[in-house]
Amino acid sequence: MMRPDTTSRMDRVQTPIIPAIGALIDATPGTISLGQGVVHFAPPPGVARAIEAFWRDPTNHQYGPIEGSEALRACIRAKLTEENGQQVTESQIIVTAGSNMAFLNTVLAITSPGDEIVVPAPYYFNQEMAIRSVDCTPVIVPVGEDHSPDASSIADAITSRTRAVVTVSPNNPTGAVYSEALLRDINRICADRGIYHISDEAYEYFVYGSARHFSPGSIEGSGGHTISLYSLSKAYGFASWRIGYMVFPQHLLGALKKVQDTNVICPAVISQFAALGAMQTGRIYCEPFVSELETVRRSVLEVLETVGDRVRVVRPRGAFYVLVQAPDCRLDDLTLARRLIQEYQVATVPGRAFGSTDSCCLRVSYGALQAETVIEGIGRLAEGLTGLT
Amino acid sequence: MMRPDTTSRMDRVQTPIIPAIGALIDATPGTISLGQGVVHFAPPPGVARAIEAFWRDPTNHQYGPIEGSEALRACIRAKLTEENGQQVTESQIIVTAGSNMAFLNTVLAITSPGDEIVVPAPYYFNQEMAIRSVDCTPVIVPVGEDHSPDASSIADAITSRTRAVVTVSPNNPTGAVYSEALLRDINRICADRGIYHISDEAYEYFVYGSARHFSPGSIEGSGGHTISLYSLSKAYGFASWRIGYMVFPQHLLGALKKVQDTNVICPAVISQFAALGAMQTGRIYCEPFVSELETVRRSVLEVLETVGDRVRVVRPRGAFYVLVQAPDCRLDDLTLARRLIQEYQVATVPGRAFGSTDSCCLRVSYGALQAETVIEGIGRLAEGLTGLT
Repeated sequence: MMRPDTTSRMDRVQTPIIPAIGALIDATPGTISLGQGVVHFAPPPGVARAIEAFWRDPTNHQYGPIEGSEALRACIRAKLTEENGQQVTESQIIVTAGSNMAFLNTVLAITSPGDEIVVPAPYYFNQEMAIRSVDCTPVIVPVGEDHSPDASSIADAITSRTRAVVTVSPNNPTGAVYSEALLRDINRICADRGIYHISDEAYEYFVYGSARHFSPGSIEGSGGHTISLYSLSKAYGFASWRIGYMVFPQHLLGALKKVQDTNVICPAVISQFAALGAMQTGRIYCEPFVSELETVRRSVLEVLETVGDRVRVVRPRGAFYVLVQAPDCRLDDLTLARRLIQEYQVATVPGRAFGSTDSCCLRVSYGALQAETVIEGIGRLAEGLTGLT
Repeated sequence: MMRPDTTSRMDRVQTPIIPAIGALIDATPGTISLGQGVVHFAPPPGVARAIEAFWRDPTNHQYGPIEGSEALRACIRAKLTEENGQQVTESQIIVTAGSNMAFLNTVLAITSPGDEIVVPAPYYFNQEMAIRSVDCTPVIVPVGEDHSPDASSIADAITSRTRAVVTVSPNNPTGAVYSEALLRDINRICADRGIYHISDEAYEYFVYGSARHFSPGSIEGSGGHTISLYSLSKAYGFASWRIGYMVFPQHLLGALKKVQDTNVICPAVISQFAALGAMQTGRIYCEPFVSELETVRRSVLEVLETVGDRVRVVRPRGAFYVLVQAPDCRLDDLTLARRLIQEYQVATVPGRAFGSTDSCCLRVSYGALQAETVIEGIGRLAEGLTGLT
């Protein structure tokens, strides 16, 4: 009897960081978690009503369409027109079981093994993991001081094997909101080079001050090469329901349906009913929460300023993250994150998970808890950074 | 501006057949569908109660554990011990968003591009699609006259690139139930050759007459190389809820968590609550339906006998499928399926989707409709086969 050979493509993929941090949190009772990227609020009340309709028709327990229900896609289409300036048909929309799945399905649909995808770093870890999982190479382009990538660096990174450039704006993990001009430049580069622009807009509603969200899919002539990814997880407190959606060039419908059918057949139908209820409530639902987060963000930045020169923070303009750099820290980021939990009862995510390897840094998420708890957590963090760096 | 190069790995993957048949059905009102593999019954009442608990804790809207909730895995573990004779720890169980996802995640976790997986044919189409989607090769081993594969043919198909053998028992699309002896032989071959045995048991409760379901994961010493896939979709009328689960050797936990995190993060949490409610009701829930299906199956076979020598049917002993072969039919299977819909208002799935290319054949699913409708549909099928073959 032989033990199976356990080498596989997954050897090149990093171990999920969130459960590792979660285990440390569980081992240190009383820890305030500024770790996982979730919001603290629940879905809108419209969701419970929408689910009543799910129960009224027993055929709702059978499989739905691969691409998602007609009603939900019609609602998404109207939202795209009104809010994102994207004019698409319903056959250019697929509902997925979360936006991670939309990204994985996209990469499967547009690549062959050995292809490259250009990814500004720090990146969202699950996207780098998806690219490696399907045997492609993430080509890393470090962002500048302001946490925005440089369009010419992106252009320089494109080779004959490149199939797409990824942008995440508002950004996870930096909170940067890319300018319309930058997104137009990147989209144009993709058009010129015959590659796709994958635009992750999961945090579209989470912008602060004068920052404005811009959807590259609204650019005239972008429809043939732009893939836009959206999520209900953040805007509607919907993380556990697993609903996201994607907008794509018509010519990708066939490939994307093959992948989705093979992967999940369709997103959970009860979640699709719930999603319709949430989207009918609309963006207005999360606006008070976004206002509150804007206040929390200001307090977070004020407290971090008290640490002085030991830390460097680029003022984030969106999402609910701050990337805290500790350039003179002698500890590596994983050790720093571990000791912050064990000695100061505050959890963050080490920058290495996002491909930040040049200096010690941590991602702080301030969306998952009530304001006062976040402020208390940031106080602990400031104390810990003062003590440990 | 260049249009993106649209060649991709998905070019090698077949187009999903169910939506294609669905479109033909929609265009022919009054068609009775013996196409898709679903059951006609809804989930047990325990599900609605289980969901009340979901709503009581707002943190249930946030992400759950990658591997599924502790309560659900504990329940699955007890079921595996009691019903399947599988002794495993909870860290060998992952809940997935359906059993298709369990298969795709498995293939991603155990292979690298270019690897081979041995698949008896006719196969379940989404498994062949999954293997091709991740750049592996399905090595096809035709089954024998009785729709069971031959263990020595499977052994002969194994090369140095083979990573697994797949068995589906009870089988989709043939309804065959593999004998315990055969499954033991295959499992032993996998052990001897250092490869995995992927055992798909989605239809475990759907066995008729003297047929008995056997789980290869119950074989002593099989734990290091056996991956067992289960589904709630059929037993609990649960298709749209997207819950399946997998049991695997401990050494695969790391790779499987990487894939699942990248793909879906976690299955919809409301679906996991519902699944717990369903599994607490237990197998007893579907037993009356299975008895009813046994009666329907007998009628289906009786009606098909009236067609005489034009069709050949191997009496199925499980699942809710009959594979109807029409060896002398001059039409190809897709044309036959299309004309049966258009001229006789009855829908089936052409055998080519399952890799049956040697002769014209159709998969008939008799689980999706009430008994009398199925019988009416089979009457139309018998008439159509008489008229068209």
